[in-house]
Amino acid sequence: MQFQISSELIEKIKLLIEQQSNEELLLHLEDVHHADIAEILTELSLEEATYIVKLLDSQKTAEALMELEVNVRERILDTLSSKEIAEELEEMDTDDAADIISELSLERQQTVIAELSDEEHADNIVELLRYDENSAGGLMAKELVKVNENWSVTGCMTEMRQQAENVTRVHSIYVVDDKNKLKGRLSLKDLLTAPSHANISDVYIPQVDYVNVHTDGEEVARIMQKYDLEAIPVVDEMGRLVGRVTIDDIVDFIREEAEKDYQMASGISESVEADDSIWRLTRARLPWLILGLFGGLGSVYIMQGFEEALSRFPVLFFFTPLIAAMAGNVGVQSSAIIVQGLANNNLRGSLFNRLMKELSLSLINGIALGLLIVIFGLVVGQDQAVSLAISISLLTVIIFAALVGTFVPIILDKQGVDPAIATGPFITTSNDICGIFLFFFISKMILGF
Amino acid sequence: MQFQISSELIEKIKLLIEQQSNEELLLHLEDVHHADIAEILTELSLEEATYIVKLLDSQKTAEALMELEVNVRERILDTLSSKEIAEELEEMDTDDAADIISELSLERQQTVIAELSDEEHADNIVELLRYDENSAGGLMAKELVKVNENWSVTGCMTEMRQQAENVTRVHSIYVVDDKNKLKGRLSLKDLLTAPSHANISDVYIPQVDYVNVHTDGEEVARIMQKYDLEAIPVVDEMGRLVGRVTIDDIVDFIREEAEKDYQMASGISESVEADDSIWRLTRARLPWLILGLFGGLGSVYIMQGFEEALSRFPVLFFFTPLIAAMAGNVGVQSSAIIVQGLANNNLRGSLFNRLMKELSLSLINGIALGLLIVIFGLVVGQDQAVSLAISISLLTVIIFAALVGTFVPIILDKQGVDPAIATGPFITTSNDICGIFLFFFISKMILGF
Repeated sequence: MQFQISSELIEKIKLLIEQQSNEELLLHLEDVHHADIAEILTELSLEEATYIVKLLDSQKTAEALMELEVNVRERILDTLSSKEIAEELEEMDTDDAADIISELSLERQQTVIAELSDEEHADNIVELLRYDENSAGGLMAKELVKVNENWSVTGCMTEMRQQAENVTRVHSIYVVDDKNKLKGRLSLKDLLTAPSHANISDVYIPQVDYVNVHTDGEEVARIMQKYDLEAIPVVDEMGRLVGRVTIDDIVDFIREEAEKDYQMASGISESVEADDSIWRLTRARLPWLILGLFGGLGSVYIMQGFEEALSRFPVLFFFTPLIAAMAGNVGVQSSAIIVQGLANNNLRGSLFNRLMKELSLSLINGIALGLLIVIFGLVVGQDQAVSLAISISLLTVIIFAALVGTFVPIILDKQGVDPAIATGPFITTSNDICGIFLFFFISKMILGF
Repeated sequence: MQFQISSELIEKIKLLIEQQSNEELLLHLEDVHHADIAEILTELSLEEATYIVKLLDSQKTAEALMELEVNVRERILDTLSSKEIAEELEEMDTDDAADIISELSLERQQTVIAELSDEEHADNIVELLRYDENSAGGLMAKELVKVNENWSVTGCMTEMRQQAENVTRVHSIYVVDDKNKLKGRLSLKDLLTAPSHANISDVYIPQVDYVNVHTDGEEVARIMQKYDLEAIPVVDEMGRLVGRVTIDDIVDFIREEAEKDYQMASGISESVEADDSIWRLTRARLPWLILGLFGGLGSVYIMQGFEEALSRFPVLFFFTPLIAAMAGNVGVQSSAIIVQGLANNNLRGSLFNRLMKELSLSLINGIALGLLIVIFGLVVGQDQAVSLAISISLLTVIIFAALVGTFVPIILDKQGVDPAIATGPFITTSNDICGIFLFFFISKMILGF
């Protein structure tokens, strides 16, 4: 069905590279899709991969380079000269070329840009490098098909054919005025059925969704998803058409964002992959662990304050990991739901309603879990007053944790901070400490030690 | 830039509904995109929303219904008769219609299908209902443009115009043989430039990516993303063309899957939203909390076994929440990276290499955290032997947790179980218990109590 990379194929290619059988290599790779070439490159050693990149024509390798993972691509680009990189970039769409250049060192960027022979292409790439990579400007490509509202339908057809050659998929034809301001759009169907003497201004559709170069990537994704768009035009501060974002880039963007959120929720502070270096993985993982450690030391400190309970109610100390786990779990559950609601823009109702709902929810959960603790106490023959004290303090801890989990992301969001950070070890850690303090405080009131 | 729903607009619409000013309502809503109509419906009361749905023509409301959240849609559909629902379905693409029908009760499904007047449409919907909703069959629509390889280019143009009327976006023209088997594809551009006397078989492109009706949705998404496809044809067991999946549905699918994984990692067992009922939210949240509770009770049991340490080394018990938190955090970090590697299909290298890497990584993290504990001990004047015992047992716990976090998802995946489940409270809970046991066991060996 699809092309499958077998270990036989990889072995064959490795052998052909060793024998320098270039013609046979070309024959093997001729009909292979660039995304599959990328997978093959990943399986080869750096020398072998570089050999293939230099052998194949740059149109194919340019697209394959785009599909590679960043770390593999970096290593291959390091072995290429600035001129060789420039040749690859010439074949790429402007957005891809800009993405790749931005991965190079500042010094290397300049030498590569100087080697670009197509001046317009170079200009476009330099323009794209100016935008934040998570904005519409950073996501857009300069390649698009546009026509002037004052053109005739026939003149337009000729001009369009020429423009379309540089554009992989046309999607929509955009209509601009003499100042390049976006006026509307035109479907290919409309153009084909329009009388040939008509002007574009007679036949175009003036409604068109668009975004600004500074629009946040998340917002672009939301609009394109909401309106099922496959491309959206991007305008500058003056309303001039400067590029367009296509759905394939948005699909990649959505995946990356989802992975980032997932990693943040798992306590990993920067985007990493299983194959990254140990140093990079440590840098991503250790910070949250240290935060967690300080949280744990906080708990140690609190428990030392309740040391007098140790002789009479040692079991309270046995319950502390349970209390901390419950406080953490409930907090993460509550905040995950709020963070998703904020991301999907579907958090409705007043803060008071949300408070009431979270209160009832945590009451139900807390009573259910408290009952289980009382039953456990009966089974193991634990002092019933102690069981009751633990149950009631657990209930309090759960209510507290749920409220923190609900309101911290809402407050962060209002402050303009990404609320997703709240579902990470941050909320777990603070809930752990507060939970343990609350637990001992309430137990002390009930048991009177 | 975009249409913005203001509270004034909502108030205005509510007033017009009250006054039953149908004409003015229609005037207000005429140019509003169906996705925005959906947002307006969500802001209205059930009676008001139903009023609007019945007032607008079904072409517009059908698309708006599709954009609604499930729970809002369910409530509105409950107020409509089977005939009214059937009228909405007539206007929808087959995949949307099938999705909506599948949300109805089995009994209601039959009465609605019986009310469908277009028999072919009804047949198509019934066919789609047979497939698993997460398979290519469940994601595809029957609407597509196809031509027979034996047709002439001119004959084909006429036939195609007719087919294209029912298809929102053409993307690709698929080529089939007399038995409806998928042979290849054709671009509109190829068709326009082909000599009119040529046969389709002379001009079509025989390479075409496709999937089977039973292909998993994740795999469809992966293929479409890898090859930047905007639509992919779907064939049945006999290779016959039965439908196609378009990128807008895949974008929704990717988002939903990402949300599910995120919720699973946050200990929420079924897909919920902040606005769901308290009962539904409890059902999604309580199971994992109960699992965590049993885990906590396991820790209580373990600590009772080490009770003899209580008098001499009470501080060990103060450190248990810290140990449990570290074991949980490290486990979740390790498993999140593996789960993403598995999902992205980029986990390379042997198991032994992975083992070595995870060992070195957890050694580095564990030593760093252990040192901090020794420093903390010096600062608060803790017995140095105790500090050392805690550090060394923490190191052991971290190595253990990292290995569990790494290998549990790999084993689950090999067994055909979704590895994402491993990042949830499941791994946290088991790591908590094992971590606390290891902690006391090692401490006992070092301190000798």
